[in-house]
Amino acid sequence: MKFNNSNVSLSPSAKIGKNVRIGDNTVIYDNVVIGDNTVICNDCQIGEPTGAYYKDSDYVNPPTIIGADCLIRSHSIIYASNTIGDHLITGHHIMVRTGNKIGHHSSIGNFTELHGDAVIGNYVRLHSNVCICEYAVVHDYAWIFPGTILSNGVTPPGNLLLGPEVGPYTVIAVNAVLLPGVKIGANCLVGASSVVTKDVPEFTVVIGSPAKNMGDIRNIQSKETGGAYYPWPNHFDRGMPWQGMDYNTWLSQQNQ
Amino acid sequence: MKFNNSNVSLSPSAKIGKNVRIGDNTVIYDNVVIGDNTVICNDCQIGEPTGAYYKDSDYVNPPTIIGADCLIRSHSIIYASNTIGDHLITGHHIMVRTGNKIGHHSSIGNFTELHGDAVIGNYVRLHSNVCICEYAVVHDYAWIFPGTILSNGVTPPGNLLLGPEVGPYTVIAVNAVLLPGVKIGANCLVGASSVVTKDVPEFTVVIGSPAKNMGDIRNIQSKETGGAYYPWPNHFDRGMPWQGMDYNTWLSQQNQ
Amino acid sequence: MKFNNSNVSLSPSAKIGKNVRIGDNTVIYDNVVIGDNTVICNDCQIGEPTGAYYKDSDYVNPPTIIGADCLIRSHSIIYASNTIGDHLITGHHIMVRTGNKIGHHSSIGNFTELHGDAVIGNYVRLHSNVCICEYAVVHDYAWIFPGTILSNGVTPPGNLLLGPEVGPYTVIAVNAVLLPGVKIGANCLVGASSVVTKDVPEFTVVIGSPAKNMGDIRNIQSKETGGAYYPWPNHFDRGMPWQGMDYNTWLSQQNQ
Repeated sequence: MKFNNSNVSLSPSAKIGKNVRIGDNTVIYDNVVIGDNTVICNDCQIGEPTGAYYKDSDYVNPPTIIGADCLIRSHSIIYASNTIGDHLITGHHIMVRTGNKIGHHSSIGNFTELHGDAVIGNYVRLHSNVCICEYAVVHDYAWIFPGTILSNGVTPPGNLLLGPEVGPYTVIAVNAVLLPGVKIGANCLVGASSVVTKDVPEFTVVIGSPAKNMGDIRNIQSKETGGAYYPWPNHFDRGMPWQGMDYNTWLSQQNQ
Repeated sequence: MKFNNSNVSLSPSAKIGKNVRIGDNTVIYDNVVIGDNTVICNDCQIGEPTGAYYKDSDYVNPPTIIGADCLIRSHSIIYASNTIGDHLITGHHIMVRTGNKIGHHSSIGNFTELHGDAVIGNYVRLHSNVCICEYAVVHDYAWIFPGTILSNGVTPPGNLLLGPEVGPYTVIAVNAVLLPGVKIGANCLVGASSVVTKDVPEFTVVIGSPAKNMGDIRNIQSKETGGAYYPWPNHFDRGMPWQGMDYNTWLSQQNQ
Repeated sequence: MKFNNSNVSLSPSAKIGKNVRIGDNTVIYDNVVIGDNTVICNDCQIGEPTGAYYKDSDYVNPPTIIGADCLIRSHSIIYASNTIGDHLITGHHIMVRTGNKIGHHSSIGNFTELHGDAVIGNYVRLHSNVCICEYAVVHDYAWIFPGTILSNGVTPPGNLLLGPEVGPYTVIAVNAVLLPGVKIGANCLVGASSVVTKDVPEFTVVIGSPAKNMGDIRNIQSKETGGAYYPWPNHFDRGMPWQGMDYNTWLSQQNQ
């Protein structure tokens, strides 16, 4: 019973790729571009306009680019002016405000929101109920687990907003908070419910509120093998470009 | 392509003001009153009835009042029996249960929920994913940032519910928890991920779990000017009634 | 104006009980079974298929069982392959992924999500914005308050996932985190914003990050009577099988 093409509202100015499917009750607003084979599920708002749309008769919706082979699940809202790469997979009820740039092969979990003007790399995993503030930067292969908040208000409320930065391969556990402007290096691990108040160098584990340096991530043992677990790409490949091959082999191929 | 007036369900007993626009697939239940120029976006439930509606054939929906010039964004649910002032702006997916009183010019962010019977003042900013328990009181010009929870169960589960109180101009940072019945005075700042376990006097900064007194908010320097940043109305006016004029000038006009 | 039966999408293979009502714009996918008198409100997706549905032309939706006398509120998503008992009541915007088993007379609050393959007992209360990881077990009469996260990734990201376990009658306050594999015994209380890092024996109060043993729950006084408040069933019965009678009387009847 796939989609019924029932009650879909599709702007005449939207450019829809080949084999795109759009769910029931979904609205595609003006100037949205959707790549081939992408699926937009039911009850979504794609290219959602800002508040000006309701006031200004001459409002023009800025372009929204969604790549090919994406899967946007039901009840999701993606504002106009976002640029999203290929192979994005989302959960339900995601909320993406204006001006974000999202790479390819990334994912966004249920109820997760991007407040705008963030830069999200490739193969990034934003789990459910994550809050990404404006101007945040999340690098390739980073993982952010449920309930974590990246914040940017230095003296709230105010106009001085500094987005935090999460390095490549870094893992932020559940319910953590990154304070404005902190930079977390590559291959770090931030513990559950930690509050990160200052920069974290690469390969570092931090835990607590305020988060304290607990040592080198490469000292964490695998519960399965007893050897070092991190960097995690040596032990986990699902959905990653090195899936089915050794990470180091893949890496050496990239560097050729 | 504004709204298409497609698949709207509008109760005959609803009273809709002039120039009100209602989005696709939105339901307006019995006895809802909507002020002039208000916009209700797509996929909303306004005047949502309680569970009794599905069981009692003689259920009568209590009145729901929504003011003028409001913007209620998509996928939002506002139960019957709420009273909401003019110029409310909401994000998407908000959830407002029964019996709340919300002032004018306030805002409610994405995924934020009010459990019922709370009193929210004017120019209050509830950011995204905030949880306001029953019987909470949030005074004018207060700001509550993402992920914060106001709780009320003294010995949960139980019938002794004490709503916390947030004073005017007070700022609660991300992921904080206010325990049942705590009263936070005017012009305070609660740090990220703090747990407030006892009353906080005005002009106080508290941080930690349990939250400790870190001194007077007026000692916090502006990162931009080096001078005192708080009270914040001296440095921030967007959307506030003193926008475009000096706060103290505005204040002196109010007191005349 | 109950439901209008407007824009409902109902699979021919769904089996719908007597007196079931289905809200506007709701989709019931293949092989869903719904018990008598259950109400599914507007804008829901019931029996939501996994990603394979969009790729495999021979995808067959696994059976989804929803019991009798349930109330599933609007904008909720229940994936295929869940088994849900009678008398479930949900809030809005709930998200239940695949393979969960949920008992009877339980409730799931607004924005709460189950990631899959969890076991939820009878008369369990999951409040709003709770995150239940895969393989979690929550026993009968347990309460989990808003913003709490049960996590399972031992060395994230990875394949070693250990679901936490919450004992019967145990209460988890707001914004807490349970680390992977922790077992919390019966009749415990976990304080607000706590991080539970190790097993907790029955009748124990734990608070903090990491959570520390604060003593026996039976030493907590009722603010109303001055006597012991816990075990809470002696003082609270709303919606419980001992409602309107003494808990111990009910208990002795059960044991006969």
